[in-house]
Amino acid sequence: MAAVKIPHMNAGDGETSYANNSLLQKTVILKVRPFLEETIKDMFSSSSPTCFKVADLGCSSGPNTLLVVSEIIDIIQGICHQVNRKSPEFQVFLNDLPENDFNSIFKSIPAFYEILNREKLDSFGACFISGLPGSFYDRLFPTATLHFVHSSYSVHWLSKVPENLENNKGNIYMAKSSPPSVYKSYLEQFQKDFSLFLSLRSEEIICGGRMLLTFIGRSVADPWSKDCCYLWELLTKSILELVDEGQVEESELDSFNLPFYSPYAEEVREIVENQGSFNLEKIKVFEMNWDPNDDVSNKKFVFNKDKSGQSVQSCIRAVTEPILASHFGEGVIDTLFARYAKHVAEHLAFEKTKYINIVVSITKK
Amino acid sequence: MAAVKIPHMNAGDGETSYANNSLLQKTVILKVRPFLEETIKDMFSSSSPTCFKVADLGCSSGPNTLLVVSEIIDIIQGICHQVNRKSPEFQVFLNDLPENDFNSIFKSIPAFYEILNREKLDSFGACFISGLPGSFYDRLFPTATLHFVHSSYSVHWLSKVPENLENNKGNIYMAKSSPPSVYKSYLEQFQKDFSLFLSLRSEEIICGGRMLLTFIGRSVADPWSKDCCYLWELLTKSILELVDEGQVEESELDSFNLPFYSPYAEEVREIVENQGSFNLEKIKVFEMNWDPNDDVSNKKFVFNKDKSGQSVQSCIRAVTEPILASHFGEGVIDTLFARYAKHVAEHLAFEKTKYINIVVSITKK
Repeated sequence: MAAVKIPHMNAGDGETSYANNSLLQKTVILKVRPFLEETIKDMFSSSSPTCFKVADLGCSSGPNTLLVVSEIIDIIQGICHQVNRKSPEFQVFLNDLPENDFNSIFKSIPAFYEILNREKLDSFGACFISGLPGSFYDRLFPTATLHFVHSSYSVHWLSKVPENLENNKGNIYMAKSSPPSVYKSYLEQFQKDFSLFLSLRSEEIICGGRMLLTFIGRSVADPWSKDCCYLWELLTKSILELVDEGQVEESELDSFNLPFYSPYAEEVREIVENQGSFNLEKIKVFEMNWDPNDDVSNKKFVFNKDKSGQSVQSCIRAVTEPILASHFGEGVIDTLFARYAKHVAEHLAFEKTKYINIVVSITKK
Repeated sequence: MAAVKIPHMNAGDGETSYANNSLLQKTVILKVRPFLEETIKDMFSSSSPTCFKVADLGCSSGPNTLLVVSEIIDIIQGICHQVNRKSPEFQVFLNDLPENDFNSIFKSIPAFYEILNREKLDSFGACFISGLPGSFYDRLFPTATLHFVHSSYSVHWLSKVPENLENNKGNIYMAKSSPPSVYKSYLEQFQKDFSLFLSLRSEEIICGGRMLLTFIGRSVADPWSKDCCYLWELLTKSILELVDEGQVEESELDSFNLPFYSPYAEEVREIVENQGSFNLEKIKVFEMNWDPNDDVSNKKFVFNKDKSGQSVQSCIRAVTEPILASHFGEGVIDTLFARYAKHVAEHLAFEKTKYINIVVSITKK
């Protein structure tokens, strides 16, 4: 199995960059807002720190990076205003892999502070944002120093491609045509990784501290359900066309598997309970259309299969291009995603398909 | 007076980058090591935190950035080993302006952690490094959260060019030919800035916490002493040549002044005492040759005026190019520094000249 680089998003601010193609992630963040509000309100009902220490894991670099910080501050401001209490100071750690474009985030921070200072109430405590490079599958923070950990659309990325996937030929993720051992390999890697993630965070979060995680999952236990894997099956279909045309070697496709897992909610619950450091407060599943423009909040949306195909491919390209390019080569990426857009368009014309998102709220025991 | 951008170093890793031209700053850090050791030993004699929280202000981006962190860890490791105590965890904040190249630093952190984990004693507490963008003339950290603040070759940069320098025509810093009001303007700006710096840090550092600052100063009260200003007078001389040749407008030179001040030690002592938040533990002055290669530790050094001229110009170019280029234009920079190298060479052939460095160790009351 060829080594696959750990995923990071498309850098910069160009047409295919993550920064310009993160509407999907923004929509997720906005849909999770009620859970975020509930979690933070619950925390503040029992304690009220003078400095609220928060980490956003897998923050990436784009307009959503500071959106999460802004939402958290908004919510706490609201709580403090209601009970006529001074807002705490905020120490925020934005975490992602060292290859993430922190420079872009940092350059946008002075303007963010200006807006905060202009818009917030007089009682606003200062906000101090830093960037923390590293994998969330390693320790990132000193012992018992965080009140709240947030992570959106990140922990579905595994620490590495699972082992024993040699027999997953012609697929890039678990698919209908994969042997059952492939599901087992993916599940075991997720169990290992998510347990490790919980265990590392349990050392870093204070007792009573919270974690709110949102990630892609699936709606049913059956690992071959359409909402779990079909997005990737269409990508496989696109790669297979390139194989047929001699643009990609068959062995390259056979040796590639995504370091990604979309768990079923019960799998997540079981890992949290078995790992044992956190109480599971809430686990919810919600759907979103593949095309993030096709959302109830967008009243102007009129379905056009080609536009939706483009929209989905640009979201998927922004998050998978670095990993695909390092395996298949930069040269095939444009063609690959043009095919992908076409397949997605055809599929969506036939059947509206959704992402299944899992949101988990847990408390450190 | 034209606006002058706040100084940041030459980015990247090219020939003229700060990263490749920071031997001077490295030499300073190594010479300050005994003071660093003394300061930290003194701190640890009275208290021993489980997590040592340290900030390096004006960390820049280059080989010295992690050198300071490494030295601090080394010293604390040594202390803990001597008294058979487990080393604390380290939370390190690397601070510089948002324009600083944090991405380069962050990419070098995984290798740094590997070396730490390989070389350090078994009792080594983990180290967690983050980057914090912002001006140290603003609040950077939550209230009373830092044990130790370090800053090397940064606080001689003022928050802005002093006011009322309209009559400092034909100079870029206080010079022999400047009217006395120029010295007054520079001193007042430094008093304001350094007081503010102390006052901001006093809110961030815990009681008993320390600060070790190293910066360029001068050896005598006389503001026109050679060791204070001559480096800049040679730069002025180089710009004047470009004015004579029509490459730079005279008005451009007249409207440019450096946001820099090299204080006399007594001026620093007075500000610390008047500001009142810190006890002055130690203030020392030490010299270093303009050419950092011309050091006792470099046994192979043989004086060659042209090499030394080059060496000094590359140090000065790395730290002043962004600010000079934004005022005079990119186009003249190569010529300007070629002239400067020649003038420095001629001067050093005639008289060996030194930087005067001030190192200050203070304790939060």
